[in-house]
Amino acid sequence: MLFLPAVIMAAEDKGGSSEHQAAALFLGIAVLLIAAKISSLVEKIGQPSVLGELVMGVILGNLGLLGIHYFDALKANEIIQFLAELGVVILLFQIGLESNIYEMKKVGLNSFFVAVIGVVLPFVLGTYIVGPWLLPGLSTKAYLFIGASLTATSVGITARVFKDLGKLQTPEARIVLGAAVFDDVMGLIILAIVSAIATMGAVSLGTISWITAKAVLFLVGSIVVGILIAPYLGRFFSKIHTGVGMKLTLAISFGLIFAYLAGVIGLAPIVGAFAAGLVLDPVHFRYFKNHHLVEDIKKDIDDLEEDKKKKINNVIESYSHRHIEDLIEPISVFLVPLFFIVTGMAVNIKVLFNGQVLLVALGVTIAAFLGKILAGLAAGKVKKALVGWGMVPRGEVGLIFATIGKQLGVINDAVFSVIIIMVIITTLITPPVITNILKKY
Amino acid sequence: MLFLPAVIMAAEDKGGSSEHQAAALFLGIAVLLIAAKISSLVEKIGQPSVLGELVMGVILGNLGLLGIHYFDALKANEIIQFLAELGVVILLFQIGLESNIYEMKKVGLNSFFVAVIGVVLPFVLGTYIVGPWLLPGLSTKAYLFIGASLTATSVGITARVFKDLGKLQTPEARIVLGAAVFDDVMGLIILAIVSAIATMGAVSLGTISWITAKAVLFLVGSIVVGILIAPYLGRFFSKIHTGVGMKLTLAISFGLIFAYLAGVIGLAPIVGAFAAGLVLDPVHFRYFKNHHLVEDIKKDIDDLEEDKKKKINNVIESYSHRHIEDLIEPISVFLVPLFFIVTGMAVNIKVLFNGQVLLVALGVTIAAFLGKILAGLAAGKVKKALVGWGMVPRGEVGLIFATIGKQLGVINDAVFSVIIIMVIITTLITPPVITNILKKY
Repeated sequence: MLFLPAVIMAAEDKGGSSEHQAAALFLGIAVLLIAAKISSLVEKIGQPSVLGELVMGVILGNLGLLGIHYFDALKANEIIQFLAELGVVILLFQIGLESNIYEMKKVGLNSFFVAVIGVVLPFVLGTYIVGPWLLPGLSTKAYLFIGASLTATSVGITARVFKDLGKLQTPEARIVLGAAVFDDVMGLIILAIVSAIATMGAVSLGTISWITAKAVLFLVGSIVVGILIAPYLGRFFSKIHTGVGMKLTLAISFGLIFAYLAGVIGLAPIVGAFAAGLVLDPVHFRYFKNHHLVEDIKKDIDDLEEDKKKKINNVIESYSHRHIEDLIEPISVFLVPLFFIVTGMAVNIKVLFNGQVLLVALGVTIAAFLGKILAGLAAGKVKKALVGWGMVPRGEVGLIFATIGKQLGVINDAVFSVIIIMVIITTLITPPVITNILKKY
Repeated sequence: MLFLPAVIMAAEDKGGSSEHQAAALFLGIAVLLIAAKISSLVEKIGQPSVLGELVMGVILGNLGLLGIHYFDALKANEIIQFLAELGVVILLFQIGLESNIYEMKKVGLNSFFVAVIGVVLPFVLGTYIVGPWLLPGLSTKAYLFIGASLTATSVGITARVFKDLGKLQTPEARIVLGAAVFDDVMGLIILAIVSAIATMGAVSLGTISWITAKAVLFLVGSIVVGILIAPYLGRFFSKIHTGVGMKLTLAISFGLIFAYLAGVIGLAPIVGAFAAGLVLDPVHFRYFKNHHLVEDIKKDIDDLEEDKKKKINNVIESYSHRHIEDLIEPISVFLVPLFFIVTGMAVNIKVLFNGQVLLVALGVTIAAFLGKILAGLAAGKVKKALVGWGMVPRGEVGLIFATIGKQLGVINDAVFSVIIIMVIITTLITPPVITNILKKY
């Protein structure tokens, strides 16, 4: 669940002065944002806007085929890539804020089972069945990398779909979010193991244990520490300033620091950002302005008729609520679409032009679908199909496996393309499928 | 009024993978944001928070002298620099939004006079009096560069002070903002002329006219076109989506595109962003959600007592108002402090250690103060001292002159340091002075 485009693209050298580059990027960002918003037209045919952004990204990123190269430089620009990555960190932080750690704990065991099966099954399918069957004659290591690339879910896509459709509070969404955290930890461990096997031919149990311990310690530790210090942070910083700016800065910094810590430990930064959002609670911000005002007004309108009161209450709630989630929303509006459109732009349509590669890729993709959908069966008494499909999107981690495998000389260009096509298909097909499942219930 | 740190610092090569770099930047941004917020403690001694951010930046940027080098890499990082520049663009766009083109027109002539005198006087003082007097024996070209570096105001500082103190709607603030736009145009023309003289020994009237025409045309053209198309933009895009996201995206994109156009023409991007904000008006967003709801509620509470009504109205207004300025506020909270803290970080305290250079610099700085404060006398029937001091801060453009002069071999290291010290002093002294003037009235 790391960052996609950075992995599969090389940064270009920048020409011209830095002011000129900055001005050009202002235009680039504006163009991408407007394109993203135009793509929200997909909502009119009942699809989540994230699908529109991904597809718009695929279109813009491949205009080079028609001789329009404006977007080639843009998608390779490291500042755009950073803003995109910042966007997905903000998104997962925001989703963490909207989630509640006690609600998450309720589904923890289900999440864990879904994650384990969703990692083991695709790995076995890819390494021992689909790989050797569709691509005979490769080395065992190559099959290992194919299997490994099928393991980790890219939760950003699914989370956006649930968010777009207002379903983040369902048990299914919680199970998927929790399972994605577990599955990122497992992905990290598998990456370390297969890399070690590829380079050294074997891996020690000590190494595996150490990586596992580090990842588990980080998750448990950050959540425990977060729960312990969060209540004091708000009180401490409210002594410096009680404005909205302080509150927002505090929340964002908390999210960014957790994202950093996750990155240091080798986990995806978005896992850290999600954990940070999870442990922050509106009550930690009670020392900041406006809460009293809102309570006051509620008393004032006590004599009004019920329906009027309800309407005014809604507005006031939204005004007071503003103090965390709503303050982050504009930053999210600004940065999150950049992530999805840049993710789409990284898709190279040309890889779809080789018939044989495409056929093999379809086989591998079916293994990718099957493994996760079957894992959904472990989700307990919920809509299992929703959980299973929610785990389907593969992204950055799959591409990291492919990139490392290629760098180590373990997999060739054809296998690399197969993995990329698998990522593309799982990413693009999931949003409409989840939308349709949600509409049926 | 271009971007400061990018001009005086070279970008370092980046090591490590891009995910690691991104994770490290998450931490860096969080640290800078928290430092900026802690610096808002200066408000407790009656100073605007922008001063705190600048001083905090100076401290952090010079911790290298104490052996702490964490911030050296941070201030040289081009992504941090871009975020800072994006921050000042957002700030001027926001200030443009809070300003009104018809109110600005009223003070247009006063702004123009202030700008002309505030450019001519410091130029003459620097080139013909202070320069030859304090630094005898240099070439005429060197004096030209010293004079030129004193001309252009860095309006970001003053604008933030007025904003911090809630004085953006005063005629003085309007005159300063308008004069800063004119003076940036004149600065651009002077830069072209002195550069031509330095390289070719002379400059044609045709070149001067062409640069002037381009700059004037851009400003007039962008404002006219903006006024003509803004009303239709809102209507057009509301057909795609009427959500808050669309509204915010539209506004930001508008600002970024104007910033880009200004940059293309050779003006500072912030001049474009300010113009964009100026032509956008709340009425252009009436096609988006929530306006009707607010009107409804106002009717509902008609029977309540006056004071209760007023309180509720305030909250509701703020809720409805949210739809432009308030939506941009969180983005501003996130990015604007980065600009001021990075500006402070670019200050190299070491240049203050050479006694002789420092003395000359103080002389040049006095010329810089005098020129602008006297220009304030042309401001008409307002608080002239406020306007004059408001024009005092020099920044990016002064540093650009110094950098180009050094690159052309026209000025030496000592003169370069003199200009940097002048920029530092005018930048750091203005916020407390303006604050005190405002408190006196």
